[in-house]
Amino acid sequence: MADWKSRVYEKREQIKNSIPPGWVVPQDALPPNSQLDVTAFPQRCRMLSSKELQITESSVTKLLANLADARWSSVEVTTAFYKRAIIAHQLVNCLTEIFVDQALQRAEELDIYLKEHGHVMGPLHGLPVSLKDQINIRGIDSTMGYASWIGKKADKNSVLVDVLESLGAVPFVKTNVPQTLMWAETFNNIFGRTVNPYNRALTSGGSSGGEGALIAMRGSPLGVGSDIGGSIRIPAAFCGLYGLRPSAGRVPYAGCVNSMEGQDSVLSVLGPMSDSIQGVKAFMQAVIGARSWMLDPLVIPKPWSNDEYNLVNHNNGQNLCFGIMWNDGLVVPQPPIRRGLEIVKQALLDAGHKVIDWQPIKHKEILATVDGIWAAADLEDYEAVLRDLKEPLVSSMTPASVDADGFHPGVEFAADGISAFELWQLQKERRALRTEYLGHWNATASATGTGRPVDAIICPTAAYVAPKHGGNNSAAYTKVWNGLDYTSCTLPVAQADESIDVDTRNFVDEPFLSLNDKTTSEMYDARTSHGAPIAIQLVGRTMEEEAVIKMVEIVEVAIREYVMNKGATPA
Amino acid sequence: MADWKSRVYEKREQIKNSIPPGWVVPQDALPPNSQLDVTAFPQRCRMLSSKELQITESSVTKLLANLADARWSSVEVTTAFYKRAIIAHQLVNCLTEIFVDQALQRAEELDIYLKEHGHVMGPLHGLPVSLKDQINIRGIDSTMGYASWIGKKADKNSVLVDVLESLGAVPFVKTNVPQTLMWAETFNNIFGRTVNPYNRALTSGGSSGGEGALIAMRGSPLGVGSDIGGSIRIPAAFCGLYGLRPSAGRVPYAGCVNSMEGQDSVLSVLGPMSDSIQGVKAFMQAVIGARSWMLDPLVIPKPWSNDEYNLVNHNNGQNLCFGIMWNDGLVVPQPPIRRGLEIVKQALLDAGHKVIDWQPIKHKEILATVDGIWAAADLEDYEAVLRDLKEPLVSSMTPASVDADGFHPGVEFAADGISAFELWQLQKERRALRTEYLGHWNATASATGTGRPVDAIICPTAAYVAPKHGGNNSAAYTKVWNGLDYTSCTLPVAQADESIDVDTRNFVDEPFLSLNDKTTSEMYDARTSHGAPIAIQLVGRTMEEEAVIKMVEIVEVAIREYVMNKGATPA
Repeated sequence: MADWKSRVYEKREQIKNSIPPGWVVPQDALPPNSQLDVTAFPQRCRMLSSKELQITESSVTKLLANLADARWSSVEVTTAFYKRAIIAHQLVNCLTEIFVDQALQRAEELDIYLKEHGHVMGPLHGLPVSLKDQINIRGIDSTMGYASWIGKKADKNSVLVDVLESLGAVPFVKTNVPQTLMWAETFNNIFGRTVNPYNRALTSGGSSGGEGALIAMRGSPLGVGSDIGGSIRIPAAFCGLYGLRPSAGRVPYAGCVNSMEGQDSVLSVLGPMSDSIQGVKAFMQAVIGARSWMLDPLVIPKPWSNDEYNLVNHNNGQNLCFGIMWNDGLVVPQPPIRRGLEIVKQALLDAGHKVIDWQPIKHKEILATVDGIWAAADLEDYEAVLRDLKEPLVSSMTPASVDADGFHPGVEFAADGISAFELWQLQKERRALRTEYLGHWNATASATGTGRPVDAIICPTAAYVAPKHGGNNSAAYTKVWNGLDYTSCTLPVAQADESIDVDTRNFVDEPFLSLNDKTTSEMYDARTSHGAPIAIQLVGRTMEEEAVIKMVEIVEVAIREYVMNKGATPA
Repeated sequence: MADWKSRVYEKREQIKNSIPPGWVVPQDALPPNSQLDVTAFPQRCRMLSSKELQITESSVTKLLANLADARWSSVEVTTAFYKRAIIAHQLVNCLTEIFVDQALQRAEELDIYLKEHGHVMGPLHGLPVSLKDQINIRGIDSTMGYASWIGKKADKNSVLVDVLESLGAVPFVKTNVPQTLMWAETFNNIFGRTVNPYNRALTSGGSSGGEGALIAMRGSPLGVGSDIGGSIRIPAAFCGLYGLRPSAGRVPYAGCVNSMEGQDSVLSVLGPMSDSIQGVKAFMQAVIGARSWMLDPLVIPKPWSNDEYNLVNHNNGQNLCFGIMWNDGLVVPQPPIRRGLEIVKQALLDAGHKVIDWQPIKHKEILATVDGIWAAADLEDYEAVLRDLKEPLVSSMTPASVDADGFHPGVEFAADGISAFELWQLQKERRALRTEYLGHWNATASATGTGRPVDAIICPTAAYVAPKHGGNNSAAYTKVWNGLDYTSCTLPVAQADESIDVDTRNFVDEPFLSLNDKTTSEMYDARTSHGAPIAIQLVGRTMEEEAVIKMVEIVEVAIREYVMNKGATPA
């Protein structure tokens, strides 16, 4: 047996053993594989007390309030979420590292702190926070799905973990990713595949797909993902969550493992995922407030701004004007996403805001530049890790490509990177495109009627709701904003409904925009999509985290009002 | 004759013709070549009226005040500086582009604006500002010393020029640079060599050497240079000025020409040079206040902070603790610089501040990483420009290498860049070094006695005062801060004095640190250095522009007090 396989078997055994026996779902209580929607299982499985259910179904806001006034102890809250996380894991396979004792010990320390000092340790006091596998915690593996990295326990915390601990949070599990992180689904040879809680035949998205599935199961109130091309927003969208991709330099990344380290151009960033925008805000405000530029040289010393959150640069949030991008000029979204955009448009109009069409420019060129920059040396980067154990490079997310032991056979590949000079030319082109797009945005001032350019862009997060495993073949709707380094946040709007999401696209008058457009259109299956969360993305300018969060709150309230009054079918 | 040479002759002729005949210094009035210090020439040449002398010897603060209340018109002020700039040019060869009519027309528009509106157009109203050659002004060449770029007039303004104009400034000349900008002296085949006004046998430094010489001659009150490894600070230091290298992302760079475009790691930045720190502040506060992140996607949306200027993070400027780096572990500075550091130390102690020694760590590694990143593809970059006209690459700043027509013969070279993957490894290493240095800085908290890490580092700008042409062989003392992206500002302390700057270094007990150290030590010639400005550098953290400016003000006042009381010989 190959050395890498024996390591994997050992690791799998170790994970199994790290689950407290009492938290194992009995074989006969597990839902059958044919049961696709497992979101209701935790409530029904009788493994969680009513208080544990109450805790795990509370919002971050409520959790923090109850933790702060000691109504709930951190040990209680952490235990409840840990149990639920492990139950969830047995249904959707979302976890990588489990360390119950360590987390509960930390929770207990926080309870003692609160008792002794009479005040919280920080704004996230007592809150369990789940972390994407790559985020180093001292003494725990960060394998990122590489067999070669099994047993290489982190010798110190990543900066973010130190910061979260200083804020009072309780890091309690690590979550699944695709090998290399450079896929928009979640499968690797060690931990296998994470599936979507709303429909296990569908992908949870990726690369932060473990987080997406876990939080959707309410196995964590708040998680941290990373996003280089959509890896926070895609799983958040597919799993019906809120997920923020901050601009580079707002959340500390130092001390995590990653792919393509040293690639200084289109950077991966860490950001929050939660089932409320308030959860996202709590994370960002606390983490930025921790002044982590004193710890990570790539963090911009830009404090959290309440002025910006209160939209002082956006008419204080009154009479905003949004630009809706119905498609990116490359692929028209499938019917559920089109309905999602229509709902948002109507909701915003009803709430007294303006909406104009956003014209995409040069998305194809931006995407090509981003792809080119990564491809400059991505294979060399993977090869440098894989060669140790002659471990295969996972080259597909399709279930058919995986054998009975959960292994992907891998592909032969030759690292075929480009020269530094060629890379510089791509980076120069990217800068020119960023400048052009900025001018394009500014020029909308003549069309909004508000005297300002559009306040934010509303667009799809993906052209579809969660597709079948192996079917998520494009990250174009998210990656373009990484290329431009724009703050973007995804939010849920409704759920796909086969009875109303009927394809009415007029192919006679509107020919396909591209081959991809044709494929995407043909891929649509109203039956399979039924019930999957519909999400849209709200996009602000670079470093507009505070404003984007506030505008998502505004949109969310508008959607809720609209749906309450008129249902989820736009006029 | 080579095509590139004929273009150069044409360009030289055109520059000569752009000087108004009345501003040409008569041949017999020019100082003889043997006269080295020409700083007093403008006062004595009788070509400037007493009012013009008064204007050109006023500080930026006074100029802005007198312009704002219409005591002096912009036309008067611009004319005075233009005349003096052109007189200076005939002595130190500092200009590249001259456009008198355009600048005076702009000045007149500003005078009319003030009259009509009763208020200034912006905080730099009416002030002439000189620009390094690479900063694009619509309709004017930006050759950067490349014959190939002669006649390629910019089709639009750089963002900074648009911003300066919106602030009321009057861009009025462009200034000389070395070909490629990647030298710390100033010579190219088109415009020739810029010399130091304090001693024309010495270099003005580079690459913003035209700015340094011009401002030292009071031919401009405020100039803009660029700095990728010291190119603002070195000429500012050699010419007795204040020069700030801001962190990347504070001053808009978009729309300038440059070397190595697309190199996204160790970035060139634009910054101010002036003969007062108040001039530096006026520029930074105005430019940052213009919110140019709306125009240049690489500008960080971080507004000017009066809190940071008032040192709220540094005990409000009281009882500061500075770390003095006496040498960088590689090269011990020559006697005048050592005296400069001693003066600053004594001055700060007298002013009630603390001073501890700064231990440099890993400067050699940081410098190697920076050099490696540039060398990844620098030659390919130059080659892409030079091949058009088979123009030579200038490979030395030594006068002996230049022929009677002012041409450097160039060198054969083979572009020998590295792969993108190799570049990523260097960039990864740089990030690790930045993280380590940040930790090192933070760790000084245990040694300062203030409860804070050192508030700033004080160190040499170079190991020597301005050396002879061709002798500036290292930018180590500045480049290390580019590698770390720390805010740094150089300020003048005194002038070299052969009677006191005697080398007392004890070579018996303290052996040379390196071969470079030995060369630098042997190079010292008290006679030649006599009269040259001594400068030091104040270094803050990334993005601490406001705080660095304030601390330079504090140091400057302390030095002035000290010298007034005790002279320029430290105890």
